Amino acid sequence: MPESPIRKLVPYAEEAMKSGKHIYHLNIGQPDIKTPEVALKAVKENDVEVLSYSRSEGSETYRKKLAAYYDYHNISVSHKDIVVTTGASEAIAFIFGSIMDVNDEVIICEPFYANYIAFATAASVKVVPIVSKIDDNFSLPPIKEFEKLITPKTKAIMICNPGNPTGCLYSENEIKQLADIAKRHDLFLISDEVYREFTYDGNLHYSILELEGLDEHTIMIDSVSKRYSMCGARVGCLVTRNETVRHTVLKFAQARLSPPTYAQIASEAALETPQSYFDEVKEMYINRRDILIAELNKIDGVKIATPKGAFYCIAELPIKNADRFAQWLLESFDVDNETVMVAPASGFYSTEGIGANQIRIAYVLNKESLVKAANILKEALKVYKD
Amino acid sequence: MPESPIRKLVPYAEEAMKSGKHIYHLNIGQPDIKTPEVALKAVKENDVEVLSYSRSEGSETYRKKLAAYYDYHNISVSHKDIVVTTGASEAIAFIFGSIMDVNDEVIICEPFYANYIAFATAASVKVVPIVSKIDDNFSLPPIKEFEKLITPKTKAIMICNPGNPTGCLYSENEIKQLADIAKRHDLFLISDEVYREFTYDGNLHYSILELEGLDEHTIMIDSVSKRYSMCGARVGCLVTRNETVRHTVLKFAQARLSPPTYAQIASEAALETPQSYFDEVKEMYINRRDILIAELNKIDGVKIATPKGAFYCIAELPIKNADRFAQWLLESFDVDNETVMVAPASGFYSTEGIGANQIRIAYVLNKESLVKAANILKEALKVYKD
Repeated sequence: MPESPIRKLVPYAEEAMKSGKHIYHLNIGQPDIKTPEVALKAVKENDVEVLSYSRSEGSETYRKKLAAYYDYHNISVSHKDIVVTTGASEAIAFIFGSIMDVNDEVIICEPFYANYIAFATAASVKVVPIVSKIDDNFSLPPIKEFEKLITPKTKAIMICNPGNPTGCLYSENEIKQLADIAKRHDLFLISDEVYREFTYDGNLHYSILELEGLDEHTIMIDSVSKRYSMCGARVGCLVTRNETVRHTVLKFAQARLSPPTYAQIASEAALETPQSYFDEVKEMYINRRDILIAELNKIDGVKIATPKGAFYCIAELPIKNADRFAQWLLESFDVDNETVMVAPASGFYSTEGIGANQIRIAYVLNKESLVKAANILKEALKVYKD
Repeated sequence: MPESPIRKLVPYAEEAMKSGKHIYHLNIGQPDIKTPEVALKAVKENDVEVLSYSRSEGSETYRKKLAAYYDYHNISVSHKDIVVTTGASEAIAFIFGSIMDVNDEVIICEPFYANYIAFATAASVKVVPIVSKIDDNFSLPPIKEFEKLITPKTKAIMICNPGNPTGCLYSENEIKQLADIAKRHDLFLISDEVYREFTYDGNLHYSILELEGLDEHTIMIDSVSKRYSMCGARVGCLVTRNETVRHTVLKFAQARLSPPTYAQIASEAALETPQSYFDEVKEMYINRRDILIAELNKIDGVKIATPKGAFYCIAELPIKNADRFAQWLLESFDVDNETVMVAPASGFYSTEGIGANQIRIAYVLNKESLVKAANILKEALKVYKD
């Protein structure tokens, strides 16, 4: 089981804080945004007397409302296609366990969400990486590159769209290329779409569940964590029209009994969140992104892939090893007793040596903090020696 | 992934209910008991504004209070020895993943909690069963029987104490025999102690964490589900003084980010539950058990192992196949339009053919219902033909 690249710096951060340093946390996707009032209120006003198990596949009323939500977003599914999970994390674990046997393979574009590797390791399956490049803004690698990697052990291609850690948003055309290869090679197409709402510059999100004729191949992963700033709820889901997959997933779901009840109350109520909430949140993220990119562009030798979605960006720095740099920022650097915590990007690649000079920045802080954090990076790069 | 033996009858139960039949649910350990007011109140009065991730190992204040709770129960542990999990289910998954590689083996006395097999399957490890017998009241099989099963692949012995589905409570002497064999063969000793509070007839629970000199071997599993009738919280934990195990477990915990936040608020507050709550609950379960046993003993040909703990008992019926019988009860039998749902015990055995004529009964209903349910079983056995 690999160490989480986001967590391995935590001891250094704790030491820094003990010494009185203030840290700007750009390392983790924990938004500072308030959870919608309607969700908080539903939990405060709950009338549970016996906090009992819910159904293993999630509460029926929640799944019905969730299906209506998807329908509104051009995704036509029944509540029967939905299995509620304890966070998107559990959805990933259930999917890997359900569609793969030991040593089977899933192809994933790197850099990718680091915990995919952890869930693959837990299920004894193998992640086969395919490199996407900062110079291409992390767009989809050529399909012929995917084909080179397909073996008899390959069971699926997995994407994260919009992408963590890249901020990349795949176009309808790119998704259709993936659909084509999935169909031709009889593979599952898994899409982690937890950042669905966070798309910028007029780009629209295209879900794999909008594909026609791919019902037996597509499995979508979702979560309330980012959408409603409810990371601590631990409610996600997987959605697939493939009944065989759902049947196996349900066995995993039944083994762990049920997803958390209070969090489902919050998640169901959150579906009533007014559109104005999302409009405000999106505007704020666009502002944050624009400021962050503008500030980073002022730093000599820094290269950035402009994010079209989610709230992360990968930056390439004029250094050799971002792991050492990130640790040094916490241990040995400050501007007016303040420093920055970033996620070294190496942990998001599984090909050894790639991305060593890149970091992932989560722009989940207010504008003033982002400007200060970018300035700290700028000053740090002036004096840092590899 | 095997089907849950508790769930596979659900479609028949749903059909029966659709046809207007009332069902006494003796099949699942979902107590009808009210969750302590102090826990419900804490959630209603929570002041969360951003429902954020907790620490992967669980909130520090909760773990500190939990350590104090264990200390009160003669188990001296630090909060650092505790990893909070999403139900005991996740604790089992983390432990299997952390201490075993693919194809490694864990010895478990059967009949055992059916989902152990599911978690073993998910981790690609093997459960090696050792039979405990209804005629011995499901007490610990002779240690020499364990020794016969130990291979180079054996990594652990696992028990559930008090036992689901047996109601068996292992004595201090039995636990010490297991400790001895674990030490001699350098195995882990895993104990699922989620029914710790439910011990009857003056018998006391002896935890594996009370053993001396076994710190590197023992891993305890716990949960708030049964103790506080909070099954829907999905909060459990694993407790071990073995730092290497905890370090690996923490990687699994970090991959899934955190246990649910609202449920941790409830669990922390639940630790303030007054002793009178437990006294009342225990008295009620003793009454329920005594009535159930008395009623079942009135039925010709039924054999029962008297439970000393938890709230289950295994009954042997004068039939050949309890799977068919349980289905028939739902599909084709009623007394005044009422029937009973029981869990066929075959699903709690992994040795083929054993326990085929046994059922598990959860005495989680009120006395009147238990009397009626036992009567339905009695009438059913009069007319049932295998």
